[in-house]
Amino acid sequence: MSADQFLSLARLAEELGAQLVGDPQTEITGLATLQDAGPGELAFLANAQYRKYLADSRASAVLLTAQDAEGFAGNALIVADPYLTYARLSHRFDRKPRAAAGIHPSAVVAASAQVDVSASIGPGVVVEEGAVIEAGVSVGAQCFVGARSRIGAGGWLAPRVTLYHDVSIGERVVIQSGAVIGSEGFGFANQGGTWQKIAQIGGVRIGDDVEIGANTTIDRGALADTLIGNGVKLDNQIQIAHNVQIGDHTAMAACVGISGSTRIGRHCMIAGGVGMVGHIEVCDNVFVSGMTMVTRSITEPGAYSSGTAMQPAGDWKKSAARIRQLDGMAKRLQQLEKQLEQVTQASSDSSNA
Amino acid sequence: MSADQFLSLARLAEELGAQLVGDPQTEITGLATLQDAGPGELAFLANAQYRKYLADSRASAVLLTAQDAEGFAGNALIVADPYLTYARLSHRFDRKPRAAAGIHPSAVVAASAQVDVSASIGPGVVVEEGAVIEAGVSVGAQCFVGARSRIGAGGWLAPRVTLYHDVSIGERVVIQSGAVIGSEGFGFANQGGTWQKIAQIGGVRIGDDVEIGANTTIDRGALADTLIGNGVKLDNQIQIAHNVQIGDHTAMAACVGISGSTRIGRHCMIAGGVGMVGHIEVCDNVFVSGMTMVTRSITEPGAYSSGTAMQPAGDWKKSAARIRQLDGMAKRLQQLEKQLEQVTQASSDSSNA
Amino acid sequence: MSADQFLSLARLAEELGAQLVGDPQTEITGLATLQDAGPGELAFLANAQYRKYLADSRASAVLLTAQDAEGFAGNALIVADPYLTYARLSHRFDRKPRAAAGIHPSAVVAASAQVDVSASIGPGVVVEEGAVIEAGVSVGAQCFVGARSRIGAGGWLAPRVTLYHDVSIGERVVIQSGAVIGSEGFGFANQGGTWQKIAQIGGVRIGDDVEIGANTTIDRGALADTLIGNGVKLDNQIQIAHNVQIGDHTAMAACVGISGSTRIGRHCMIAGGVGMVGHIEVCDNVFVSGMTMVTRSITEPGAYSSGTAMQPAGDWKKSAARIRQLDGMAKRLQQLEKQLEQVTQASSDSSNA
Repeated sequence: MSADQFLSLARLAEELGAQLVGDPQTEITGLATLQDAGPGELAFLANAQYRKYLADSRASAVLLTAQDAEGFAGNALIVADPYLTYARLSHRFDRKPRAAAGIHPSAVVAASAQVDVSASIGPGVVVEEGAVIEAGVSVGAQCFVGARSRIGAGGWLAPRVTLYHDVSIGERVVIQSGAVIGSEGFGFANQGGTWQKIAQIGGVRIGDDVEIGANTTIDRGALADTLIGNGVKLDNQIQIAHNVQIGDHTAMAACVGISGSTRIGRHCMIAGGVGMVGHIEVCDNVFVSGMTMVTRSITEPGAYSSGTAMQPAGDWKKSAARIRQLDGMAKRLQQLEKQLEQVTQASSDSSNA
Repeated sequence: MSADQFLSLARLAEELGAQLVGDPQTEITGLATLQDAGPGELAFLANAQYRKYLADSRASAVLLTAQDAEGFAGNALIVADPYLTYARLSHRFDRKPRAAAGIHPSAVVAASAQVDVSASIGPGVVVEEGAVIEAGVSVGAQCFVGARSRIGAGGWLAPRVTLYHDVSIGERVVIQSGAVIGSEGFGFANQGGTWQKIAQIGGVRIGDDVEIGANTTIDRGALADTLIGNGVKLDNQIQIAHNVQIGDHTAMAACVGISGSTRIGRHCMIAGGVGMVGHIEVCDNVFVSGMTMVTRSITEPGAYSSGTAMQPAGDWKKSAARIRQLDGMAKRLQQLEKQLEQVTQASSDSSNA
Repeated sequence: MSADQFLSLARLAEELGAQLVGDPQTEITGLATLQDAGPGELAFLANAQYRKYLADSRASAVLLTAQDAEGFAGNALIVADPYLTYARLSHRFDRKPRAAAGIHPSAVVAASAQVDVSASIGPGVVVEEGAVIEAGVSVGAQCFVGARSRIGAGGWLAPRVTLYHDVSIGERVVIQSGAVIGSEGFGFANQGGTWQKIAQIGGVRIGDDVEIGANTTIDRGALADTLIGNGVKLDNQIQIAHNVQIGDHTAMAACVGISGSTRIGRHCMIAGGVGMVGHIEVCDNVFVSGMTMVTRSITEPGAYSSGTAMQPAGDWKKSAARIRQLDGMAKRLQQLEKQLEQVTQASSDSSNA
């Protein structure tokens, strides 16, 4: 059923297993926040911070917990977790075009490639020798699928995604536009000051239910494969170097850079702009805050940070200058402690004299 | 008139409304800096720092203020603002190819798309259902224009730009190669440790006279639209997350990352590599220096910074080690102050005794 | 000879000029690390840290120095520099597809473009007026080569690379997918709060043996050309602004950003995430550590850093708060020193009294 057809609150309650309070014939035509919602729109309350908008919301109905629904006069769908219910419901109102099965006549598909009949290959797509595209996959316009690469069932590639050769992608993987998977990593041997290229002969293996953001890059392995676990979510403009391993269900926000051969555990959350040096290990359940530089392995779950807090530029200049004097300050502090102890001692001696 | 035709200094003076000093028949064939200019080239002096190059410049003529022209023996065009005049004049010497109107035969344009007859659609371009491309727009080779997206009159897209569906772009907007507008933002609800995708059902709305750099990414809104104001200039490799709002005439240098739902005011200047957390507000007329991490709202105009100053690595290691001891140092300092007060007090007491 | 044909250790030793110890008939089918290698695979020992894996490696043979080979019971190829030998050998086992010479029928090549008969132009490629593609060049699928651009002999472009107009590339240059060379840099003149675009009329000149990573962007010059020296290696997602100059054999790791007109010397190594402001100079043989912000010229070779070391978030919050108090702390420290001197002086005076 498309979002354009009549959808009653009663029907929605039934689908979601929600308790309906209010008029079952209310028509729902879209989703919005409590503040922005207008007639026909369903809103949700998932964060106590937005409770203040509930009473005045113009939404036709609101997804609420039983507790939040108390005293609410409007139409409500009562569910255990409004945010998860909203997440689930959001797909019903998604106007993202669904491509029809089949290969567009302008696509260039190698004779030895296997494309499932239920897959969609968009205009201008290039699929090379021995590639495999499984059932229900949608390959957006102008994508490139390299030799012997495989896209598992149910995958969705936005337009203009590059998969080099020997990239293996699990099921239901979503890749945004401009992402590059399997590029040749930064492998050079220094010979008397010049750099000799090392062929990158490994591939990339990506698990199921992974999401890869726009213009994110994942290098192929130097020898073994680069590995991305199941359920990993990578935001935009992330750089994953050769032979990195990322554990299942780890999420990274935009602009993160992970250097070569670093291994990250499961269920980690890496905030935006974080950098990690190569050849370290980060254990499971680690949270790294925004723009932190991770220069050593992390062996204990928990939250980690680096950097300094923002200040007005005038104050910051003073702080920055002082940081450069910090080693000297520390030594002067120690010196003062010694001197004061001597003074106190002397004073005590003279008192006792 | 193309740069290849004869252009006299007299004609240039007339076009620019400049006062000519020197030979009106001097031919101008190009633009260059004072240091690099050779015969036929027009240079400019806009920054006092470069005044030292004026006397020895081999330029055939120089754009100058009346003040800087005093005592200059060469040909000069005297204007109020040489830098602005240079900016205006630069377009005359731009060798960027201008595409002819019409749709290249290799482009794939949906029947329901509307392409103005004066627009140019390059080779390999894909335009989807219901898209609108207005008068004088140039869509470079291999671009993708998603369903129902709109490009306002006079726009210029370099090759290989992606607009997803429901992206609305104002007039005279320039977008560099590899930029992605309307990608699905990083929206997931955590359900017992795994991430459930939230469909991103908002769009992107971009104002007039905006410039978007190479490989910059702008995510579509989760529910409402992501908003980029009029006259906004975004450099390369910038990441704008879902539901960010950027005020008119704000400029951002390369590699900036703005997290979801953050609102930035008008006439701000955000230097390269800055990161901002989500859900904050930055007021008008704020300058943020390079690589600053903005972790809270900014409510006062002015300049802001974070980070530490660069040092030789040996010194830096000492500073970095001391920063980790800083809380302890602060407590020891306080302790010293107390002790010294006691000593001084005791000494004073004993003097008074 | 392809990796699929029989390759004996004896033959490999001959090719590499290596001393063979062990069974000359051993078949080598691939390369792997000491830890991962299995039957048929050749491993190497280049880093003392991995020596512990040597004895138990299942590799069919190992590249070793004479010193490391002492006491090793397995098959060995003894060479002076195992890492360089591995680098050289890696290309033999690279399964990267080699494109056949010729122009794919779906490519769009301007009549005035010159394409050498030994060059390969992939599907969907667009080559514009006056472009020159020299002998043995491979232009991957969906690349764009702008007007009057030139790719020197032996170059290799991955799919989906953009070269704007007037980009000149030396011999044997490798460019990964999504890279953009020659984009219009961030040039605007401020006129009463709004930004007037300055046409970017310079080009880009790139030397021989350069490597450019995935989604890296290099802007064209504003007036003169942006310059990349011979043997320069740029990793993924690097941003090079207009009129930057990079000296020969300098290497940059991923996510580096260099602002406009900055000049970097030869044989520098710039680690990941480094940012440099514009209009500075960095001399030869400089190493800059990860995520350092370079805000001034560097005139002495050596290593440079900025930033703070990572801490557990709780400790970091304390450090960050203290940094903001640092100027006050420094003044209090100075005050303490004065007071203590007075106390000591007074105490000394009273002792002498």
